[in-house]
Amino acid sequence: MSTAVIKRIGVLTGGGDCPGLNAVIRAVVKTAINQYGLEVYGIMDGFGGLIHNQYTKLDVKSVSGILPRGGTILGTTNRDNPFRYPVKKNGETVYVDKSDEIIANLKKLEIDALIIIGGDGSLSIGKEFWDKGFPVIGIPKTIDNDLSATDITFGFDTALHTATDAIDKLHTTAESHHRVMILEVMGRYAGWIALEAGIAGGADVILIPEIPFTIEAVCRKIRERKDNGKKFSIIVVAEGARKKGGEMVVAKVIPDSADPIRLGGIGNSIAEEIEKCSGMETRVTVLGHLQRGGSPTPFDRILSTRYGACAVKALMEGKFGHMVCLRNTRIETVPIADAVKQLRKVPPDGDKVFAAKSVGISFGDE
Amino acid sequence: MSTAVIKRIGVLTGGGDCPGLNAVIRAVVKTAINQYGLEVYGIMDGFGGLIHNQYTKLDVKSVSGILPRGGTILGTTNRDNPFRYPVKKNGETVYVDKSDEIIANLKKLEIDALIIIGGDGSLSIGKEFWDKGFPVIGIPKTIDNDLSATDITFGFDTALHTATDAIDKLHTTAESHHRVMILEVMGRYAGWIALEAGIAGGADVILIPEIPFTIEAVCRKIRERKDNGKKFSIIVVAEGARKKGGEMVVAKVIPDSADPIRLGGIGNSIAEEIEKCSGMETRVTVLGHLQRGGSPTPFDRILSTRYGACAVKALMEGKFGHMVCLRNTRIETVPIADAVKQLRKVPPDGDKVFAAKSVGISFGDE
Amino acid sequence: MSTAVIKRIGVLTGGGDCPGLNAVIRAVVKTAINQYGLEVYGIMDGFGGLIHNQYTKLDVKSVSGILPRGGTILGTTNRDNPFRYPVKKNGETVYVDKSDEIIANLKKLEIDALIIIGGDGSLSIGKEFWDKGFPVIGIPKTIDNDLSATDITFGFDTALHTATDAIDKLHTTAESHHRVMILEVMGRYAGWIALEAGIAGGADVILIPEIPFTIEAVCRKIRERKDNGKKFSIIVVAEGARKKGGEMVVAKVIPDSADPIRLGGIGNSIAEEIEKCSGMETRVTVLGHLQRGGSPTPFDRILSTRYGACAVKALMEGKFGHMVCLRNTRIETVPIADAVKQLRKVPPDGDKVFAAKSVGISFGDE
Amino acid sequence: MSTAVIKRIGVLTGGGDCPGLNAVIRAVVKTAINQYGLEVYGIMDGFGGLIHNQYTKLDVKSVSGILPRGGTILGTTNRDNPFRYPVKKNGETVYVDKSDEIIANLKKLEIDALIIIGGDGSLSIGKEFWDKGFPVIGIPKTIDNDLSATDITFGFDTALHTATDAIDKLHTTAESHHRVMILEVMGRYAGWIALEAGIAGGADVILIPEIPFTIEAVCRKIRERKDNGKKFSIIVVAEGARKKGGEMVVAKVIPDSADPIRLGGIGNSIAEEIEKCSGMETRVTVLGHLQRGGSPTPFDRILSTRYGACAVKALMEGKFGHMVCLRNTRIETVPIADAVKQLRKVPPDGDKVFAAKSVGISFGDE
Repeated sequence: MSTAVIKRIGVLTGGGDCPGLNAVIRAVVKTAINQYGLEVYGIMDGFGGLIHNQYTKLDVKSVSGILPRGGTILGTTNRDNPFRYPVKKNGETVYVDKSDEIIANLKKLEIDALIIIGGDGSLSIGKEFWDKGFPVIGIPKTIDNDLSATDITFGFDTALHTATDAIDKLHTTAESHHRVMILEVMGRYAGWIALEAGIAGGADVILIPEIPFTIEAVCRKIRERKDNGKKFSIIVVAEGARKKGGEMVVAKVIPDSADPIRLGGIGNSIAEEIEKCSGMETRVTVLGHLQRGGSPTPFDRILSTRYGACAVKALMEGKFGHMVCLRNTRIETVPIADAVKQLRKVPPDGDKVFAAKSVGISFGDE
Repeated sequence: MSTAVIKRIGVLTGGGDCPGLNAVIRAVVKTAINQYGLEVYGIMDGFGGLIHNQYTKLDVKSVSGILPRGGTILGTTNRDNPFRYPVKKNGETVYVDKSDEIIANLKKLEIDALIIIGGDGSLSIGKEFWDKGFPVIGIPKTIDNDLSATDITFGFDTALHTATDAIDKLHTTAESHHRVMILEVMGRYAGWIALEAGIAGGADVILIPEIPFTIEAVCRKIRERKDNGKKFSIIVVAEGARKKGGEMVVAKVIPDSADPIRLGGIGNSIAEEIEKCSGMETRVTVLGHLQRGGSPTPFDRILSTRYGACAVKALMEGKFGHMVCLRNTRIETVPIADAVKQLRKVPPDGDKVFAAKSVGISFGDE
Repeated sequence: MSTAVIKRIGVLTGGGDCPGLNAVIRAVVKTAINQYGLEVYGIMDGFGGLIHNQYTKLDVKSVSGILPRGGTILGTTNRDNPFRYPVKKNGETVYVDKSDEIIANLKKLEIDALIIIGGDGSLSIGKEFWDKGFPVIGIPKTIDNDLSATDITFGFDTALHTATDAIDKLHTTAESHHRVMILEVMGRYAGWIALEAGIAGGADVILIPEIPFTIEAVCRKIRERKDNGKKFSIIVVAEGARKKGGEMVVAKVIPDSADPIRLGGIGNSIAEEIEKCSGMETRVTVLGHLQRGGSPTPFDRILSTRYGACAVKALMEGKFGHMVCLRNTRIETVPIADAVKQLRKVPPDGDKVFAAKSVGISFGDE
Repeated sequence: MSTAVIKRIGVLTGGGDCPGLNAVIRAVVKTAINQYGLEVYGIMDGFGGLIHNQYTKLDVKSVSGILPRGGTILGTTNRDNPFRYPVKKNGETVYVDKSDEIIANLKKLEIDALIIIGGDGSLSIGKEFWDKGFPVIGIPKTIDNDLSATDITFGFDTALHTATDAIDKLHTTAESHHRVMILEVMGRYAGWIALEAGIAGGADVILIPEIPFTIEAVCRKIRERKDNGKKFSIIVVAEGARKKGGEMVVAKVIPDSADPIRLGGIGNSIAEEIEKCSGMETRVTVLGHLQRGGSPTPFDRILSTRYGACAVKALMEGKFGHMVCLRNTRIETVPIADAVKQLRKVPPDGDKVFAAKSVGISFGDE
């Protein structure tokens, strides 16, 4: 398919909410119109809008003022997969493939290509559309920052601000009341938010999935601080952190949800043990949804704008089936097939963990 | 007792952590030294410091740089009541009166008066000391802002910022995912934080102790919004809110704690009901300890400074047994005996509730 | 005129920009529609819209999302006075009275009353309309907080945040470089911003119009600090501050402007003198327009919402020629005639100045 | 020189103030002590402390609590060059080399190596010390982010926040008053702050040293917006921006100062021209010193901590004469000789400028 045919594009957001989505949408719309004279349709509520035919035309006015706003004007969900769409049949749920129907619809609307802003799941679906010949460009979205194909994704810096601010706030209460304060943050498979917020907020202990911990080592650190006259401690724990030899602790799973395990588990599960072994009042705060909200930071606004503009450029250069990514300070592209499912984990021997340990932070591993 | 004898004073903080405590301490110390040539001793960890003889001398350097810092450099707790101090005797706990011993100690240290910064409990203890003849001045502290003797107390404005910021953050997620988001904030007996953060954050429903609600009325509001194209709703609920004819919902009480019911209850307890009756995904965030932390806002720094300075002035004017308060923009004094236990509740017919209802906020009462 | 006739109202904003204007407009529109079933017209660009017939109908959707936004969706200016409107005639400017024409226009549009949000100038014009029989309710706006009829006005708290934040930022540079840093803030006739930001930011010297200063006293304070090992000083100066026996320093006046003297003067004018007499590098920052911008603080959002809602209520109660005000924590009304031109100045013997002096701040007066 | 001899190190900060300096110092001290058992001396006020023998021993307590604080506890200046130190001789200033004297002093104090945190000037001096055989490790500091050897330096992200926040604030005033607002930011040789804050803040025009502009092109953009109903414009201008064929505009140079040209020039110099050619009220805000202050952002706190920890590691690995840098997300080292004086300029054909142009921002060049 030659790029010459691209005259009208669709854009959608899939998966969990993330600061910077609106800034990406704005850049896609403005670049498409200003730089390439395209028309842009916004598809509502992720792939649901493709299935249920919910579109809206976007012009420059539609995206005016949304740069600093969190969330997505298009709505989002991760419930709807066009290739495996659940339908009730004789009282049972069967999964049907709606993709041909959707592609036919897109053609009827004269939409020539899709820009998909989403996580692993949404990008994989995008890839499937391109496998069937429909032009797609991906823009990676993961607030956990755990995608190996890109150095960093938008939303992470904003979540980091929120988490660091929370540590700053807990610090004063911990200090005044001589308590152990535990802050549980996002990070199911990778501990980036816990690691970076912990360094930035001056935490005493950081627990992440990549470095299994023991309660004994955590308590040793707390007692060591007490012996040195520091009568309080701050622990930052990623939701996916686990004990040596243990499983991930998940308090409650809500299926079919955009953020299925965000209900807190590990934080509460270790609080009592720590209270006992340290002899100090211990309190847990689960940051939860607050990490996904708020106005994006300058860094996230800029990265989102670059992603959006460069995704349209990549589209016009015919790089279908690719997604944009940040590598060594430059926006590049990479095949979606190579990018999804490749987790970017915290390297235990990297310079961030080295720096954290050097300033006295324990990872509960020794 | 004439003021002429006041040469050395003690200052202590009691009860839960609150932004502005350090600013009060700083103002007490600087005013005492700069304006009146006094000496100041800081008593550590609330009344515990009086019981266990833990003091530290404070000079101008001791309080340098603490104005913008949350928490209290003196430490705080509300576990220790000198008049009813628990002692183990033959395996049982009996309560003894340590006040004579403490007053004797204070005299030995040549401390002529105490400035007590605390809530109802701490101020009542202060009054008991003055009843026994030991000079005391109180400074009211209640982050819930529920003391009738003063128009406003320090810490409230900072908590309001934190809660409003949380609503701003939840807004974008609610809107993007078409959800009902519930934010549970402090306010056991009075709903000031919920009311004011709800107005400032543009909430759709505010539930407070002063206005009992029904789930039906809450759901009616959510459905009404849905019918008008607003596919999300934000509910702010004070921890002490209750249903019409119902009791306060308390999930878990940790006795002997500075903030015994801060563990969330009402938020979670109504979430499922709302999910069912509205047919919308509903999520709860419990703000908890974050509301007590952080750098005080300018308003709180100023009020704290005024309180601290005027408390020392009141002491030198011999107004023992009084506490400072803000009335009609001026700092005044009032007898502690008249002030404690008089709750300042949200008047359901006041102009704040009127304004909230006028901009379309439901209180779940009609 | 009976209130029964009020069916359609107009709302306008006049004078300089101020955080909270949009929140007031939102509350006026929602209250008028939700509570009283009125129609609302927004008049564009202050009284200019009345003169040039620029209106727009406002419904609940028009004001959706503007609560947290600074500025005014209606536009504002203080150039146009309908009673003294400048017209070029034979090469000369003559001033004509457009008020009859405007009232006729308003009647044609079936607008029964006006809500005017503005400062002294705009409210005085409003009063003149009511003197001619056209119903008007005023809402006071003065970022300098210098109106005696109300305890506080919206916008001030936000400006205070901006100024305090600036002092926090200058502190670190002053300290690192051993400098004197001067921050010039708004406050032509009253020094509220300088006084309160100075207290909240921990300034060393505060210079305000109400307390004339001498350079000698300022330098004495700086040297005193140096002698005590504090090798830097922060000075906050209101634009209207003046030396003992001196005049207000105004660098450059731009006539016909909303903020005619906001160009800095006193700050620069004293910097060299201070550099000389203190022997320390001295730098000036003029905060200027930044003080008028930004998202309103929670306090300002709430006060704006109360003002807007209560102004419509006052209108429906027939309190024409009155403005709303905050007195002793409640919204009340007062005749505009009694309110304008009555400056609320900083009382040099009030508890704020006492508190400031007690924590060691010099006003350059002794 | 073998690393075995390093037992005691010195650390100093040179040049202009920058957010994150304290976080670097903290990481250096903690890493040196915790990881390598070294002793650390802080050298006061840049190279001045070496010349005037002003040192202080730093332990873990000395750096407690400084992570979130702007500025430098060591003081800084860029006035003193040990290799060219000005001395008055017979009424004339002659420059003498104090380096041998300093090295002798350091040896007497048993300080085996220096960690120098500074800009081009300070790092060059560090290199000269290593040229003479005294072990030195550099840590780059440039708030303008214009050093080619490193992807980014600490302090820039914080300055970007301050500048973006200022644009957000000016936006509302510009919009309400139908004005052109000009914000002058730092960036003498490279326009990174103007470029990134301009993108993040949604500016309409960005003027940077790398892309010379014409007033005509700027005014064309403003008129174009006016024609599209946008009655205001925001211009962000780097202090080093210049017209096509023109020189850099410098209002006033204060020699021997840490930030010699921070007094505004280009902003004011273009304001009148723009007012004339656009016919719109135009106002200038010079952000100045505010950009160097404030608590570092999480990103800057983390980068500073990594720099500090890795600098000590590099020292212990014997990489004398090198400085740490960030390259492709990892901390590496590079010879100071290769790093200084190599400016990292904004590439006019990079993806940031492309993205900016794509969302409609003019650089005044076409």
